[in-house]
Amino acid sequence: MTLTAPVPARPAGLAAPAVCHLSATATARLLGEWRGGGPAYLALADALRSAVLSGTLAPLTRLPSERDLAAALGVSRTTTAAAYARLRDLGFAVSRVGSGTVAVLPRGSASGRGARTPAPSAGDAPTADAGAPDGPRDLATPRDLATPLDLGQATPSATPALHAAFSRALEALPAYLGTGGYAHHGIAPLRAAVADRYTARGVPTAPDQVLVTTGAQQAIALLAATFVGPGETAVVESPTYVHAADALRRTGARVVGVPAGDVETLASAVRRTRPRLVYLVPDFHNPTGRSLTADERASVRDLADRYGVTVVGDETLTDLALDDDAAIRSPFAGDGASPHVVSVGSASKSFWGGLRVGWVRAPEHVVQRLARTRQSVDIATAVLEQLAVVELLSRRDEILPGRLADLRARRDLLVDGARSAVPAWDVPSPAGGLCLWVGLGRPVAQAFAAAAVAEGVLVAPGPVFTPDGAARDRVRLTFARTPAELEDAVVRLGRAWRRVTD
Amino acid sequence: MTLTAPVPARPAGLAAPAVCHLSATATARLLGEWRGGGPAYLALADALRSAVLSGTLAPLTRLPSERDLAAALGVSRTTTAAAYARLRDLGFAVSRVGSGTVAVLPRGSASGRGARTPAPSAGDAPTADAGAPDGPRDLATPRDLATPLDLGQATPSATPALHAAFSRALEALPAYLGTGGYAHHGIAPLRAAVADRYTARGVPTAPDQVLVTTGAQQAIALLAATFVGPGETAVVESPTYVHAADALRRTGARVVGVPAGDVETLASAVRRTRPRLVYLVPDFHNPTGRSLTADERASVRDLADRYGVTVVGDETLTDLALDDDAAIRSPFAGDGASPHVVSVGSASKSFWGGLRVGWVRAPEHVVQRLARTRQSVDIATAVLEQLAVVELLSRRDEILPGRLADLRARRDLLVDGARSAVPAWDVPSPAGGLCLWVGLGRPVAQAFAAAAVAEGVLVAPGPVFTPDGAARDRVRLTFARTPAELEDAVVRLGRAWRRVTD
Repeated sequence: MTLTAPVPARPAGLAAPAVCHLSATATARLLGEWRGGGPAYLALADALRSAVLSGTLAPLTRLPSERDLAAALGVSRTTTAAAYARLRDLGFAVSRVGSGTVAVLPRGSASGRGARTPAPSAGDAPTADAGAPDGPRDLATPRDLATPLDLGQATPSATPALHAAFSRALEALPAYLGTGGYAHHGIAPLRAAVADRYTARGVPTAPDQVLVTTGAQQAIALLAATFVGPGETAVVESPTYVHAADALRRTGARVVGVPAGDVETLASAVRRTRPRLVYLVPDFHNPTGRSLTADERASVRDLADRYGVTVVGDETLTDLALDDDAAIRSPFAGDGASPHVVSVGSASKSFWGGLRVGWVRAPEHVVQRLARTRQSVDIATAVLEQLAVVELLSRRDEILPGRLADLRARRDLLVDGARSAVPAWDVPSPAGGLCLWVGLGRPVAQAFAAAAVAEGVLVAPGPVFTPDGAARDRVRLTFARTPAELEDAVVRLGRAWRRVTD
Repeated sequence: MTLTAPVPARPAGLAAPAVCHLSATATARLLGEWRGGGPAYLALADALRSAVLSGTLAPLTRLPSERDLAAALGVSRTTTAAAYARLRDLGFAVSRVGSGTVAVLPRGSASGRGARTPAPSAGDAPTADAGAPDGPRDLATPRDLATPLDLGQATPSATPALHAAFSRALEALPAYLGTGGYAHHGIAPLRAAVADRYTARGVPTAPDQVLVTTGAQQAIALLAATFVGPGETAVVESPTYVHAADALRRTGARVVGVPAGDVETLASAVRRTRPRLVYLVPDFHNPTGRSLTADERASVRDLADRYGVTVVGDETLTDLALDDDAAIRSPFAGDGASPHVVSVGSASKSFWGGLRVGWVRAPEHVVQRLARTRQSVDIATAVLEQLAVVELLSRRDEILPGRLADLRARRDLLVDGARSAVPAWDVPSPAGGLCLWVGLGRPVAQAFAAAAVAEGVLVAPGPVFTPDGAARDRVRLTFARTPAELEDAVVRLGRAWRRVTD
């Protein structure tokens, strides 16, 4: 295939102006505890760089003036000026006469170097395009940041079965090529396969109760757009999956956080705020790793029915039970009878994120409403992707054990490594999922994340996962990387910790 | 692959309640001129059925009571009662004690019959899931509507080159399988290929100015969500592509229509309403088929720059030039220098709708903003789909001539057939695109569409395409069907017209 071509000249007149401004106060709040060991200007530059890499500070944001930031942080203007200069040197800021200093992403990753080669470009929640080949092309690559080890993005590589699944899907494709290719609810075999999987798990489900979506994120966005309007309330856990909270916020809703896994507080929040929607991750919670008990699930379903509130259970991680006794035996939807309980699932973690296929399991009338919403969103999900997922679901029992064994070994490696590297940390070993939710013992998540970047590792600071910027004493580390990468990362994280604490 | 499985029992307690009510006045307005020849109750039932099939009346809408509707329409209650009974007989309505009459979609298509087989299920804009296998499964299939000929959905079948393109894409896929699979801006080879195509057309474009999206619909939805907020104004043409107007309405915006192709009225609407976004189909307009002249395009760009309003040109149909001299030689973006002109494109019409790949060409800072919005929408577009489109774009010059020759023959067949079938119609032959915008000479589009359904043909009545329900004297007919289907359809449309007019 044709994957190379001459690079066209960059057209003139297309400078990239900053699209938003950040006040000095907001910047200070965003940085939190940024001071580490060493010179203040270096720590400040590191914290700002980390904020860009973790996605809390959007690229092309105009930063406050050196003077204002100095006042807000209680440091000298020399410090802020030196920090901005350092950011510019690293390629994380540009300054233009008359328009101040603007945060940008450097072109820094392995994949970014050859924009014309078919090298993969990765990048996912919760960090922004750190290392992706999508930053401004006129900035030099900072050498010390060329290929950071990314423990921020919980994105496992593909199952080895994926290629064969696509080959089989390609055999089934010709039956669809004579049609327009749009199946608004999903192709029938996939709706049936997803329904069968729920039924096999004890949740009787008909294909008409399944909507195929373009990934779980779209499922969440459709639910948000369909059930929540401006000024209404949605409840999420805190911490929670960051893009779910974002999708809810995009509707103009007020997003209220309750402590993750605390069903009693959830009940009182529902009573008090009468939300339109509650979003939970019941299985191997992202980021804490905890699963709700069977009783807690039953309480949540009761709550849904009592208050008539739509409760969405995100089962994206459900397949990823790593400990022998960790398999989820009480599906979130229970017996499937509640008209208010909605389940969301996805092929992204079980098989591959580069497959964009997810689904909603809901009462049929909810499926119909969501399908109508989705017509103005993306019309339908790609047919071949759906066929591949039919194949992968049918071979689930062959595929998952190997994948889980791999992830289990990597989890253990990172847990042991992190505990050895910094004995003061609280490093729980989650029973499933893709991440460790590490307690630092001190509210220095942003400063530590910045120091980690300086050591060449991306981590996701706790405040990213909370609606109110809490969890400053936590970072999320994914173990969805190769053993060699994890071993390297652990050494670097230890060094980063000493930068912050020494 | 495993494509068959036992059908699980339908769980109890999941009745599908109506989710919205339609007042008698609104129903009357929606039906417009519904009276045709023959008994009034049959014409009324046909008009309601047509409204469901064309998407103007959403399934699961609760209809007004027989009494209220009779009063609003000025007919007897016997007529409305008989019409509802007929709708029920046809599977387009269910009545339940205490909850009145609810419009539904019957299970009606060939693909719907075997929900467990890999038979294709199609369905697309602007009609709803007519004939899709997604209606309530407990309704009998009305025999006389088993497989309507669908001239409503402008969805051509796949290019014969599609399967080979996926095979080649599968060869390139392994390079990506070690990554998480998320490329928020699109994979580098596709951004480059799209940029090269714009550059080759005279619009200098760098890959950083391209965002890959999950189809053009997502591109439009992202632009709407990013640029337009509640209470703000967006301007569209009237008639226009219906899902674009829907996506804009979803933001809470006021959507103002100006006559399609009338740049002067557009200018005065922009001056008067100061919209945040203008959406146009400059090439082979959907549904009128007309293209803007080079001067008109220049005027639109001037307007964008003068008022700082984002003007989106939807180039989905640009490749489909059917007449020899119809190729679009003046790309909507001009020299690409305007910071306010945004182009949207797609693989759906040029290659296949079942590929969900589109793109935005915009200034780099706009691409960055859209990419941030899309993280809470669907994260990224499927990798294999993108690789297939790289391949298809590289073979564009081999693929398109055959596809265009096919479509040209079909257009001519439908134009000639429609002119012969009903000499009174105004049947313009569009220079490109997929549809005829037929003038009926009388404001009976809804009644005619209903009569066509009764004759086994789906057509899209004009009011579907206008923000204010105008164009009642128009229907849109697509010629993206096989010659045999078109020949059959023409005969049926002639019969349907006589039903309305005799």
